[in-house]
Amino acid sequence: MTEPFDAVDVIVAKRDGRRLTDPQIDWVLDAYTRGVVADEQMSALAMAILLNGMDRAEIARWTAAMIASGERMSFADLGRPTADKHSTGGVGDKITLPLAPLVAVFGVAVPQLSGRGLGHTGGTLDKLESIPGWRAALSNEELMTQLADVGAVICQAGSGLAPADRKLYALRDVTGTVEAIPLIASSIMSKKIAEGTGALVLDVKVGSGAFMKDLDRATELARTMVDLGTDAGVTTVALLTDMSTPLGLTAGNALEVRESIEVLAGGGPRDVVDLTLALAREMLDAAGRPDADPAAALADGRAMDAWRAMIEAQGGDADAPLPVARHTEVVTAGSDGVLTELDAYAVGIAAWRLGAGRARKEDPVQAGAGVELHAKPGDAVRAGQPLMTLHTDTPDRFARAREALADAVTIGAADAARTDRPLVLGRVSA
Amino acid sequence: MTEPFDAVDVIVAKRDGRRLTDPQIDWVLDAYTRGVVADEQMSALAMAILLNGMDRAEIARWTAAMIASGERMSFADLGRPTADKHSTGGVGDKITLPLAPLVAVFGVAVPQLSGRGLGHTGGTLDKLESIPGWRAALSNEELMTQLADVGAVICQAGSGLAPADRKLYALRDVTGTVEAIPLIASSIMSKKIAEGTGALVLDVKVGSGAFMKDLDRATELARTMVDLGTDAGVTTVALLTDMSTPLGLTAGNALEVRESIEVLAGGGPRDVVDLTLALAREMLDAAGRPDADPAAALADGRAMDAWRAMIEAQGGDADAPLPVARHTEVVTAGSDGVLTELDAYAVGIAAWRLGAGRARKEDPVQAGAGVELHAKPGDAVRAGQPLMTLHTDTPDRFARAREALADAVTIGAADAARTDRPLVLGRVSA
Repeated sequence: MTEPFDAVDVIVAKRDGRRLTDPQIDWVLDAYTRGVVADEQMSALAMAILLNGMDRAEIARWTAAMIASGERMSFADLGRPTADKHSTGGVGDKITLPLAPLVAVFGVAVPQLSGRGLGHTGGTLDKLESIPGWRAALSNEELMTQLADVGAVICQAGSGLAPADRKLYALRDVTGTVEAIPLIASSIMSKKIAEGTGALVLDVKVGSGAFMKDLDRATELARTMVDLGTDAGVTTVALLTDMSTPLGLTAGNALEVRESIEVLAGGGPRDVVDLTLALAREMLDAAGRPDADPAAALADGRAMDAWRAMIEAQGGDADAPLPVARHTEVVTAGSDGVLTELDAYAVGIAAWRLGAGRARKEDPVQAGAGVELHAKPGDAVRAGQPLMTLHTDTPDRFARAREALADAVTIGAADAARTDRPLVLGRVSA
Repeated sequence: MTEPFDAVDVIVAKRDGRRLTDPQIDWVLDAYTRGVVADEQMSALAMAILLNGMDRAEIARWTAAMIASGERMSFADLGRPTADKHSTGGVGDKITLPLAPLVAVFGVAVPQLSGRGLGHTGGTLDKLESIPGWRAALSNEELMTQLADVGAVICQAGSGLAPADRKLYALRDVTGTVEAIPLIASSIMSKKIAEGTGALVLDVKVGSGAFMKDLDRATELARTMVDLGTDAGVTTVALLTDMSTPLGLTAGNALEVRESIEVLAGGGPRDVVDLTLALAREMLDAAGRPDADPAAALADGRAMDAWRAMIEAQGGDADAPLPVARHTEVVTAGSDGVLTELDAYAVGIAAWRLGAGRARKEDPVQAGAGVELHAKPGDAVRAGQPLMTLHTDTPDRFARAREALADAVTIGAADAARTDRPLVLGRVSA
């Protein structure tokens, strides 16, 4: 079969700052999926895209071509609105766990197709797999049945959605091309559009623990994704939220499930509750339920009931004790004062090194490993007071986790003025 | 074995515009040669180098690391000076063929390690292989013996010289990263420095038929290579020469050998003779023979004797008839006037499509295929007069060759002022 383009010509066009034509984009992604364009060619193209950019029409076409590489799902037969949430990834970001059942309480179906963790941010599926019996892999039929019966599903994205993206994502991860906004936006949005959700709320993280370190770039990413969703007929809204310090008091798989259950029980750390409610309100609003009161559903047990139904539908034992790490060590404060900084990235790396995350995608994770925080920015501390507990099954990991945390904590004078950073930094809509 | 660096960190450093450290450069090339750094990682790095550049010290270290990936040769035992020539590649560039024996006449050993053609420029070894019996592959011992006995060798570069470069060159060719000046310069110079020549003359081509289309970039490349050679103790000079129109009247393997023999016999096209003499004088001067008279050696048959000895030492039959293509077609002038342009790139592509070159490195070439020119820029032509003859063994190739030539020829009014472009456009020395 004769190919209509040569990969080198496409690479050279972007390398030299030209825009790619629609047929070039369609071809290069299709040919990459077929293996005609080789990994080393796609990585060179990805680097050229990262350094030279793509315009809005190019990104839209790139996304459409990724969607076209696989199947599309439809929830039209459910007879109720659907809403999904996607976070760009942060440390201690367990929001999906309470959020999906909470939104389902109000008759909105939540098909939350999720991934595993790679690097310093945890993966939603890894967290849920710490619940005994819980299954991440569902068939499309199981997914539809559970959405109809329970209203909320958190499961593994099927391999049929945007296969070009899966291949490209793995490549970008090892070639220093993760950070390209056009590639991040099209990767996320191709899967969400192919999935067929009616409404989508994006949680774009900003700060040391996020891929986007500054608000300008995060806003650009949010705008790019909102435009892509809107153009594809998905009601899309983005919140820009702070990721300079971990969300809540835990980073690690079972540790985060425990904290999520506290939130579903009406308790839990303030920031986790606030962000869960902010995102729930956006989802409910986008799905046509502007009058819903999600705070009430946390307080009165309806969200917890939905959680239990969701976990049990996937084989999980909602009453079973969660795994606990075999070894712990405490990190204490070096001086009296006010905790002014607690760096999200450092905590994420520490949790990862303790065994909560994986270095390669085939590595296992430890269910019980992670970091538990005993103080957050703004809290007064005393020298010798426990600041964190490190959890792992393999105590030889403590040393490297402590290394990662060496500069993570800043303690100011007792009267240090801490400028409170709001949790929600901005909002982008169509 | 634990690696001291992570490939992604090295890629990201260059991607973000930082300079690579010496240990990073040493490691990445060594790890690439060992297969620890993957092709898709090296191609992303190459694209980042192309777009963000490297400074002089980085290029020097990169070159040294490529040399260190393989063996180094030495001609010290020969007891006479050595000089080599390298051309960055052009259409009809057969200069190496008359040049090597011509310089050897004066007691300078010429170890001309060469390559095969890929793309629109021909390869020296492909040309010589049209001589019945001639062998490109010599052992190091055969090379040394022939240099001592005959003084000139044109042969295939051994696989032991800069193996990192061979791997990287093949990668760049398919990933749109050929045109990076740091990578071109280090690729050429690593092999020449590892080869051990005492003097090196570079023929850096400028124009449509060359990799470098404009004089500024060509001068930058020449300067980079002269600096690299000088720093490594090789007497290095570069000429910048015109490649807007083909050199001589032939492009193709046996066709170019025939023209080279005409030059060695004291005839041949003026531009081929002039460039052969210009480069010979530079080589002889750099090798300590400033008083040699190469024009006399072309006129009196000494260069031809050296050619015959060189060809026969490698099994070639210097008297055998050269292969001739089975089919020819003539391209004629469309109007009366003066030939003002004859585009080198178009002629190179036509010769390639006729079978003189290869699309993939494992393809065979046709010995007789190519383009023979009957007029050059500045010549007066009449409508219907033959301008070129196309040669091939496979006549279905004529149509695509003619396509390539569609805009190759410009005929101006009979009184069109043609601004003569000089053949040598500049000179760069230490």
